[in-house]
Amino acid sequence: MKAEIIAIGSEMLTPFRVDTNSLFLTDELNKLGIEVTRKTIVGDDPAGISDSFRGALQRADLVIAIGGLGPTEDDLTRDVLADLLGRRLNRDENIVRAIQERFRKFGRQMPETNIRQAMVPEGATPLPNARGSAPGLWLEDRGRLIALLPGPPNELKPMFTDSVAPRLARVAGDVRLYKRELRIVGLPESDVDQRVAPIYKSYADVQTTILAAPGEIQLHYLCWTSDAAAAEKALAELAERSVLALGEHVYTTRGEALEEVVANTLNENQATIAVAESCTAGLVAERLTRIAGSSSYFLGGVVCYSNAIKSEWVDVPRELIEVKGAVSPEVTVALAEGIRRRSGATLGLGITGIAGPGGGSPEKPVGTVHIALSNGAGSRERAFRFPGERDRVRWQASQTALDLVRRLFLYGPGVRTN
Amino acid sequence: MKAEIIAIGSEMLTPFRVDTNSLFLTDELNKLGIEVTRKTIVGDDPAGISDSFRGALQRADLVIAIGGLGPTEDDLTRDVLADLLGRRLNRDENIVRAIQERFRKFGRQMPETNIRQAMVPEGATPLPNARGSAPGLWLEDRGRLIALLPGPPNELKPMFTDSVAPRLARVAGDVRLYKRELRIVGLPESDVDQRVAPIYKSYADVQTTILAAPGEIQLHYLCWTSDAAAAEKALAELAERSVLALGEHVYTTRGEALEEVVANTLNENQATIAVAESCTAGLVAERLTRIAGSSSYFLGGVVCYSNAIKSEWVDVPRELIEVKGAVSPEVTVALAEGIRRRSGATLGLGITGIAGPGGGSPEKPVGTVHIALSNGAGSRERAFRFPGERDRVRWQASQTALDLVRRLFLYGPGVRTN
Repeated sequence: MKAEIIAIGSEMLTPFRVDTNSLFLTDELNKLGIEVTRKTIVGDDPAGISDSFRGALQRADLVIAIGGLGPTEDDLTRDVLADLLGRRLNRDENIVRAIQERFRKFGRQMPETNIRQAMVPEGATPLPNARGSAPGLWLEDRGRLIALLPGPPNELKPMFTDSVAPRLARVAGDVRLYKRELRIVGLPESDVDQRVAPIYKSYADVQTTILAAPGEIQLHYLCWTSDAAAAEKALAELAERSVLALGEHVYTTRGEALEEVVANTLNENQATIAVAESCTAGLVAERLTRIAGSSSYFLGGVVCYSNAIKSEWVDVPRELIEVKGAVSPEVTVALAEGIRRRSGATLGLGITGIAGPGGGSPEKPVGTVHIALSNGAGSRERAFRFPGERDRVRWQASQTALDLVRRLFLYGPGVRTN
Repeated sequence: MKAEIIAIGSEMLTPFRVDTNSLFLTDELNKLGIEVTRKTIVGDDPAGISDSFRGALQRADLVIAIGGLGPTEDDLTRDVLADLLGRRLNRDENIVRAIQERFRKFGRQMPETNIRQAMVPEGATPLPNARGSAPGLWLEDRGRLIALLPGPPNELKPMFTDSVAPRLARVAGDVRLYKRELRIVGLPESDVDQRVAPIYKSYADVQTTILAAPGEIQLHYLCWTSDAAAAEKALAELAERSVLALGEHVYTTRGEALEEVVANTLNENQATIAVAESCTAGLVAERLTRIAGSSSYFLGGVVCYSNAIKSEWVDVPRELIEVKGAVSPEVTVALAEGIRRRSGATLGLGITGIAGPGGGSPEKPVGTVHIALSNGAGSRERAFRFPGERDRVRWQASQTALDLVRRLFLYGPGVRTN
């Protein structure tokens, strides 16, 4: 079964907005075994909307349109589709009452314009909207399925899950999408592909996509089939063989975020961490605490931009900074050790570097970053040179720092630094 | 002049990737007075690509296709378009040599497959690619302009700027897009619209778009015209009247980020800042330091998750935490004052709260956040209840904290807290 998504709204033809609803919808459709074959983004223009529907209905089994169901004159989806299909629009008194009730709850009278939202093409089924006034619509036309959904994600998502997915599940057949996502830190894309291509190429039923994301490579294995057991077996085997080929550079085979893997690792090892950040300036602390319940492993952090604060707050000897420079292995180790001692955490993480655009020199160009991890018994320090601009340097530094924490625990339950 | 953008690549029909090149292209096209009327995203499928080109060439004056110019079998854009237009593909020996040269520079031999990239449809002009092996293509067909650009943004952007924009400037006519972007913190979207609608509605030539972004409202005023002076005058007047209606909630009329405005404000007032963050956990420090040269105003920060660290690192009295609770006005003020004293900064910012999902109570539900700003002479503290999940609560807290810093300086050059 093939689907097309039409996102309707002039704001998505500006430089300020991109359609992201289709990512959620694609994920959900894929789970039902439905492939998305095209996405179209049109403005609030009747000819464009009509033409987009016409084309999509010729090509696809299912057309999902997003947006244009509001009460204003710009909201044309209902009218245009009814016109295209030659169906009358009838006023649905149940919807009128529901919208009036909604306004009453907020202590307001329903404006006349909202009547538009109660117009239903002949033969269409309104889909209730728990979070907004615009109901969705479901209809079938000459063997094609059509769903109209509201644009706000918090309205679209529950409506799809509650009203569209069950309808699709009944007709979608038994092909489903099975998948695995490996994420890799510390190997460039070409190396990842070189190592795993001979493996994934031997799985004819698995589609492979390699994506380069900031600071990591993502390896997607997809399998469309009605044979769940065979898919799970093939994907498990493929994931296992890939991990063998990629080694400790793989941090997940289930698409988890690096923060999540590090959080689990720290919790499993009953370890705690504190961070002293210079160039990343809070990014590592912020990422470590994105996970709910992060207080079980994260004790605290210091953002020590100035040299004075490095000394006063994290006990880095002033002479060390003077002699070695703030961006040096020695100062970074002192930060890691200092923050560990000051916080009482199992692990201390220290980061210094030159994020740019200023501050670089021939010996220490922009992108130079030192990361040190201390466990009380000792410290491990590594130097990096990250490409790109300020935000990219900072992100890669945070990614590498989190990955160093993960790797520390790879070879056993204990905490080792060498 | 109307343009359509076709983004080609199966990865953009997965849940993992969205086309963002079109945002850059839309911005650049708009500057040239060219409106984008549709975006289509298709996979690496010849029928789909061909059909997308056919439709776009019927509707638009300019069609820009992104991607599918690489050396692999999946890269079909050139072949499909040549076929659709009935043009032969000829091998361009200059391109062959350029690609060979590129490989030689990296110490490698050009694989045979890269010859595909040297195939040029009759009558088309290759566009040089400084950053990759795939040249772009420019052609004209039956009065339509067509540009084929490579997918990687770091190749697409310079190629558009160097080779496509100058060609378009010659034919685009003298209509240009003029714009202003106001950004507003502290007013809901409906209030913003209510205040400014009577104003912008009196400017018939200005298109208005109101967008709700996390923690702020963005108000876009757009004016397509060949009369630069009239546009600038109308937009300046409209921006001024809007600021009068919206008051101090507007932080920029030029689309700047809040971090940037706060950085400029601190620099102009020769003020420095330090932050003590609990629930935002480094996010405010990270945002304050996104700006190059941030060490001129940012001294340092502490992420104080545990109560012990609030006391030990920021001098919050233990009894205060015991009596008032960690999430309280008093502790937040103590954090702001403590971090100011410890850092020697002009301003201290303290943030505590419950980001969720756990930790809420009937009196202090998830989303409760206290923010305090101290200047040595006194402190100002405010309590908020932000909706949404953990990441949204943290973002809104950071946004509100930065905005409080901005507002502190609104009424004069001095630093006041009341």
